[in-house]
Amino acid sequence: MSDKNFADRLIAAVKEKGNPICVGLDPRLELIPKHLKKKALEAGGTPMKAASEAILEFNKGILDAVADIVPVVKPQIAFYELFGHDGVWAYQETLKYAKAKGLITIADAKRNDIGSTAAAYAQAFLGEVEMFEDMGQEVVVPIFDADSITVNAYLGWDGIKPFVEEGAKYGKGFFALVKTSNPSGADLQDLELKEGGQIYEVMGNLMDSWGADYIGESGYSLAGAVVGATYPAQAAALRKIMPKAIFLVPGYGAQGGGAEDVKPCFNSDGLGAVVNSSRGITFAYTKKDGFDEMAYAEAAREAVEDMKKDLEGVL
Amino acid sequence: MSDKNFADRLIAAVKEKGNPICVGLDPRLELIPKHLKKKALEAGGTPMKAASEAILEFNKGILDAVADIVPVVKPQIAFYELFGHDGVWAYQETLKYAKAKGLITIADAKRNDIGSTAAAYAQAFLGEVEMFEDMGQEVVVPIFDADSITVNAYLGWDGIKPFVEEGAKYGKGFFALVKTSNPSGADLQDLELKEGGQIYEVMGNLMDSWGADYIGESGYSLAGAVVGATYPAQAAALRKIMPKAIFLVPGYGAQGGGAEDVKPCFNSDGLGAVVNSSRGITFAYTKKDGFDEMAYAEAAREAVEDMKKDLEGVL
Repeated sequence: MSDKNFADRLIAAVKEKGNPICVGLDPRLELIPKHLKKKALEAGGTPMKAASEAILEFNKGILDAVADIVPVVKPQIAFYELFGHDGVWAYQETLKYAKAKGLITIADAKRNDIGSTAAAYAQAFLGEVEMFEDMGQEVVVPIFDADSITVNAYLGWDGIKPFVEEGAKYGKGFFALVKTSNPSGADLQDLELKEGGQIYEVMGNLMDSWGADYIGESGYSLAGAVVGATYPAQAAALRKIMPKAIFLVPGYGAQGGGAEDVKPCFNSDGLGAVVNSSRGITFAYTKKDGFDEMAYAEAAREAVEDMKKDLEGVL
Repeated sequence: MSDKNFADRLIAAVKEKGNPICVGLDPRLELIPKHLKKKALEAGGTPMKAASEAILEFNKGILDAVADIVPVVKPQIAFYELFGHDGVWAYQETLKYAKAKGLITIADAKRNDIGSTAAAYAQAFLGEVEMFEDMGQEVVVPIFDADSITVNAYLGWDGIKPFVEEGAKYGKGFFALVKTSNPSGADLQDLELKEGGQIYEVMGNLMDSWGADYIGESGYSLAGAVVGATYPAQAAALRKIMPKAIFLVPGYGAQGGGAEDVKPCFNSDGLGAVVNSSRGITFAYTKKDGFDEMAYAEAAREAVEDMKKDLEGVL
């Protein structure tokens, strides 16, 4: 067992940096500065490798620029899988670089499966993998080594348990989808149950009970929840249902959520949530006069400072 | 638009091979024959690379042994991500090898996200990715190039739409989780709704409507459903709710489902479902007297023949 609870580590990082900002690293190759792509293409290799190298360099620039002012980063793996195994290499290297910079990482992968398969995901992303013991070798290595992962709990407890167990063992955690930020989230999540409440509320109750035995000194559990900034009334209801869960809040900025909208995601102590912004920070340079590609990292840092001020107004 | 609907391709393959068997490629390194691991370790490289090479060689042996007698294979990506980007390389190579052997592939990845991110997954797994147009190059390549993918529809229509669109464009398809085979599937999926029906039934209804505009000449849609063999009564209910969906049926064999249990997943014409077996086929050699590692592929072929006979008894 790790002597440190994931929630305690996250809350400590939020307090140290003085803000609950999570920078989403969702690279879009077409928006990555040309000088980085030129360098990667000139290095040779396949187009997928060049794309992945450009993405990694871009991310390093962003991480160098924001590491001292934000507590958390969240690379979204779909934008890396777009380039196959080379992209996944860039994903692993991004997580490693962020960790070396002292940042808490969230692998936004929304993994989900039945127990034995979920266990493989949990080992790969949060734990360690054992190899070749039967071949007279003892290799035990972390693979993705993220601090936490997003998961989808449609399969119920036995699909979540491996993440709880690896989390407890290695001081790591996870965020399960409860109320998502997209317009169609309501298709299923907002349906009313016979026993009362809507599906997202029942999911909140399940998560609250699943995380109850893993609460740290901070008062928060290693089992967190994804709650979109775009539905503040539902977030307020969930804050009451899941007082011990840290909310990972997408939907701020580009998706339309503002500071007032994320307020209900926090507890009265001003803690209990991290607010993600992806494009609004990493591609801030594309919105500025002059569109200076060389200054993309500085533009990202400025965007973080603006977001910090925006959130300070309500927290 | 592709001139061939995914469901038509799948149904044609099932008819051609005369059975609806899907071989699950869920490699467990500890169960892979020692001679394959020895060879991979001797080739040098990191432990993760050696593990991935051993897995790929193992899979090729299985595929060589079963390609002429089964229509579909389904590699489960968690067991490859366990070895990071090297494992994902083995995953891509496995899909490529299966395709070259004329097999229909299901990327069992259960991906899910909001619209713009789901689009990246759909492109990566089913479609093609465009790169570097802005750099004076025109690179358009398939990445995983699977015939289909499993998805989780908790996020609603806008998270499913990109898979429908890429599917229609490239003659590919997907299977959304409706009723899963694991014991805890009931935690959420079996709850009753105020409007009537259980959550898995409502999910079935949603999938039926989402796939309605994409039905091929076979009468089936490119939008399929995952329905576990372990809950035959629920499968029967879903067969009525989703007459046009092809069911991907996990849970046969190792998880406890038998031939009688999968029967309700089929329509009266004996079509409409593919039944997956993973460990029961690929690691059949570990259950045989003598435990002959060199004959793992032959044991897998025998296991397929046994499963074929077992299913013929009820279909």
